[in-house]
Amino acid sequence: MDTSTEPEIVMPGDRVLVILDKRRRYIVEARRGVVLQTDRGVLSMDDVLGRPYGSRVEMRGGQYAYILRPLPEDLMLLGFRRRSQVIYPKDLGYIILLSGVKPGSRVVEAGVGSGFLTFTLAYLVGDNGIVYGFDVREDMIKTARSNLMMAGLLNRVRLAVHDVRRGFPVQSTVDAVFLDLPDPWNTVGHIYSVLKASGRVIVFQPTVNQVEKTASALKKHGGFTDIRAVEILLREYIVEEGRVRPHTRMIGHTGFIIHARKVLIEGGEKK
Amino acid sequence: MDTSTEPEIVMPGDRVLVILDKRRRYIVEARRGVVLQTDRGVLSMDDVLGRPYGSRVEMRGGQYAYILRPLPEDLMLLGFRRRSQVIYPKDLGYIILLSGVKPGSRVVEAGVGSGFLTFTLAYLVGDNGIVYGFDVREDMIKTARSNLMMAGLLNRVRLAVHDVRRGFPVQSTVDAVFLDLPDPWNTVGHIYSVLKASGRVIVFQPTVNQVEKTASALKKHGGFTDIRAVEILLREYIVEEGRVRPHTRMIGHTGFIIHARKVLIEGGEKK
Amino acid sequence: MDTSTEPEIVMPGDRVLVILDKRRRYIVEARRGVVLQTDRGVLSMDDVLGRPYGSRVEMRGGQYAYILRPLPEDLMLLGFRRRSQVIYPKDLGYIILLSGVKPGSRVVEAGVGSGFLTFTLAYLVGDNGIVYGFDVREDMIKTARSNLMMAGLLNRVRLAVHDVRRGFPVQSTVDAVFLDLPDPWNTVGHIYSVLKASGRVIVFQPTVNQVEKTASALKKHGGFTDIRAVEILLREYIVEEGRVRPHTRMIGHTGFIIHARKVLIEGGEKK
Amino acid sequence: MDTSTEPEIVMPGDRVLVILDKRRRYIVEARRGVVLQTDRGVLSMDDVLGRPYGSRVEMRGGQYAYILRPLPEDLMLLGFRRRSQVIYPKDLGYIILLSGVKPGSRVVEAGVGSGFLTFTLAYLVGDNGIVYGFDVREDMIKTARSNLMMAGLLNRVRLAVHDVRRGFPVQSTVDAVFLDLPDPWNTVGHIYSVLKASGRVIVFQPTVNQVEKTASALKKHGGFTDIRAVEILLREYIVEEGRVRPHTRMIGHTGFIIHARKVLIEGGEKK
Repeated sequence: MDTSTEPEIVMPGDRVLVILDKRRRYIVEARRGVVLQTDRGVLSMDDVLGRPYGSRVEMRGGQYAYILRPLPEDLMLLGFRRRSQVIYPKDLGYIILLSGVKPGSRVVEAGVGSGFLTFTLAYLVGDNGIVYGFDVREDMIKTARSNLMMAGLLNRVRLAVHDVRRGFPVQSTVDAVFLDLPDPWNTVGHIYSVLKASGRVIVFQPTVNQVEKTASALKKHGGFTDIRAVEILLREYIVEEGRVRPHTRMIGHTGFIIHARKVLIEGGEKK
Repeated sequence: MDTSTEPEIVMPGDRVLVILDKRRRYIVEARRGVVLQTDRGVLSMDDVLGRPYGSRVEMRGGQYAYILRPLPEDLMLLGFRRRSQVIYPKDLGYIILLSGVKPGSRVVEAGVGSGFLTFTLAYLVGDNGIVYGFDVREDMIKTARSNLMMAGLLNRVRLAVHDVRRGFPVQSTVDAVFLDLPDPWNTVGHIYSVLKASGRVIVFQPTVNQVEKTASALKKHGGFTDIRAVEILLREYIVEEGRVRPHTRMIGHTGFIIHARKVLIEGGEKK
Repeated sequence: MDTSTEPEIVMPGDRVLVILDKRRRYIVEARRGVVLQTDRGVLSMDDVLGRPYGSRVEMRGGQYAYILRPLPEDLMLLGFRRRSQVIYPKDLGYIILLSGVKPGSRVVEAGVGSGFLTFTLAYLVGDNGIVYGFDVREDMIKTARSNLMMAGLLNRVRLAVHDVRRGFPVQSTVDAVFLDLPDPWNTVGHIYSVLKASGRVIVFQPTVNQVEKTASALKKHGGFTDIRAVEILLREYIVEEGRVRPHTRMIGHTGFIIHARKVLIEGGEKK
Repeated sequence: MDTSTEPEIVMPGDRVLVILDKRRRYIVEARRGVVLQTDRGVLSMDDVLGRPYGSRVEMRGGQYAYILRPLPEDLMLLGFRRRSQVIYPKDLGYIILLSGVKPGSRVVEAGVGSGFLTFTLAYLVGDNGIVYGFDVREDMIKTARSNLMMAGLLNRVRLAVHDVRRGFPVQSTVDAVFLDLPDPWNTVGHIYSVLKASGRVIVFQPTVNQVEKTASALKKHGGFTDIRAVEILLREYIVEEGRVRPHTRMIGHTGFIIHARKVLIEGGEKK
């Protein structure tokens, strides 16, 4: 094997994932003097800097911790600030796949909230892609911006306080539109305008009533086909040898995913 | 809006998605002389070439069809040849998210089968990434190669007939390892060797017994933490106004997703 | 063991359950001259009469069949005529438990349809109980009557063509009320009148919109508390040794169960 | 309406269900001097005795409580003592339906635990039926007995400390056998002996491994057909008008239900 197999080292400024056990896991900035306090012991980042990722480090107090490079879900679930209901990995994964987002994609998101989806999109579109993100609440935009900055992806997003019921202030059509709004039916004409033909609009909503109204508005507009609604459920298993079973508790509901594709309306676009 | 909002036109050689209704949907190559025969009418690609994507085209027989640019799931579900059980979008989405794959990622897949996951990975790693794909069966590698070629992503993959129980013939460590094999427990040491520390191994398997054996082997090896098993269920809804309800039928099971992260073993790597 | 362990014998007039394999199962009347024709062979009831229940009998054609005494679900799923959507065992079981029905209970059902729930109720209330069953369609009442007669429980039911939106023609209050109607919200006042205080009304409905309207009407009336809506899902497993897994297909939806308990309205009953 | 519609009155010695709100619900014995203390106020049974069931009663502290006659699930979930994992209504309902239990049935249960299933069976078999219940732990038998006594159904059950791996000490064959044991595969021959031909054995178990072993043992014995395993999931909905949605949390797993029917083994019974 070549030199690229040299282990990666924790560098100053890295965000590292610290795992003590199933429940105790933290995102910490690796800087001199930073200390992680837990009920199982204390970990100084001085003891972590310069160690290879994947290392097991002894905390003051005797317990061991694993130091890992965080994956996207770790950043979101452990590192991000939250000011709103968030979209969870099970839903994010399906939304991403439906959308066809890829390196270089240009996409729009309205209702960025804490920026979980914004981050996932920015992560996947790469440096040649762009994510336009809007929210009517300034505190949400601030939270999302701070989360994206922490994740090092702020250069791929354009965030603005804006109500998309007044239109999408984007220079040209985009590959996909993502909405996490209470009333997406009030911006259907604008979705049509900003979305490339064949592209998908994907809406995430908690109640069945919203699903009904959103799907109805998309149907009535006429510029959308393949209108569908689904729900993703995740079941966790406990895998002890000889005692495999589903977890006793599960998340019963997060939200519904409604999606549709833009088709051209004959004789021009209608709003 | 600027000129980039000019509609995209169907060009010779494009694979187009033709939608007649919920069930009648096809991937067709847009070339002169190619004709799509359906029980609802006949569509000549001569009538499709040069039209903007998103257009509604009248078929011979009177019914209309929408002509769309396919999204990844369309290519897989409608365009790909299948020689094996495949991994469906609900599972692909979650697997992708777990893996942290992104533009430029280098990943390994064993048990490529018809290449559904291979394609999804190649789609997301971009031109700077690479997907190494192995299968013990030559017919699978051929099928996967033909599917990737059709999708135009063959340049991002290295496919080979190979049994990964003898190791992963890859030059340097990779960001993630994906397995769809009957017996991944027989290659755990090799997974450890090929995977970067902090990286995830993700296994897809149909039976609970395989989940148990895989998780046990990962635990026993010692070089993995955060070993988990989950299952993704997708529920479709029928959204007629005033009559919203879940579909009467659903897919009850595809497979389980087992995943773990590599940590470093003290005092060197064990196989 | 005493004489009651003598095996039970198939007697003329019995309805027997014939099991060839997972899919081939039949309810047949055990009478001289009756013959069961299947694609796997022919079984004459002459060869079955006088045999102990539980016997394995060779069919003409060589295949063996088991002769069993049917359980309630066999009668319903294999023996009953159907003229409507039916309520399945997974839902029947929960409905029964919620209702508190027991030997001697007096209950009312509206929307009897093919009589699956009617039969289950009659089965459990015993000879001292009674089930009042109503339906607006005469063909339904006929089908339900014929099914109850076949099951030998017609003496425990009173079936009538009647629209319960005009009230429940029952002499005194009942222990529980069961509804499988498109618009139960139009008979809420009558439900209140016919139901004993503390008793439960249980409604089975296919769409979320109906659930919403029913629950809202029960709330607005004021004479009900503990208003809830649930859904029961059944997952089947394939249990081959070493290859245990959920079934690939499952029933994704049958209906929702809404239930509530009657409380007294101060200052008299309101309709 | 006749006199049977006279409201039922709370009598001394009754167990009543007191409902304050969704979470605050209690089973209390209605006797002079008994007082229910809650964080929302105090309810004296002196104020409840003689009131009609269904009444709304003001507590000291100002909050109102509904006084209802308990249904079986209330007794179990609120009134019973628990010394073990219990079987929940969603599973009890389906188990009951599968078993064909009815007024007059004679059944056997092993692993009675806290007596939830024992009670449900006793409730449905009526005064002419009987439930034989066994457990290896004396504390369980005591708990179950106390719960059945509280429910007023002790006359229908015969409880004993006994290990059914040594056989079922029952005088004659029974209509159904229920098991909630860690290792039912060790008593398969005895199940065959005690169960009537055509009757069902129903096993409740938490892990997939137990399901596999139980089903395998039933297959190998040869005296059982129609061996199946299922799981029941219950999903609760929040039904606020205009905001209908599934609950955020749900019970992800209680147990699996394995069931089979006894058929006769040619040439006598084997153990």
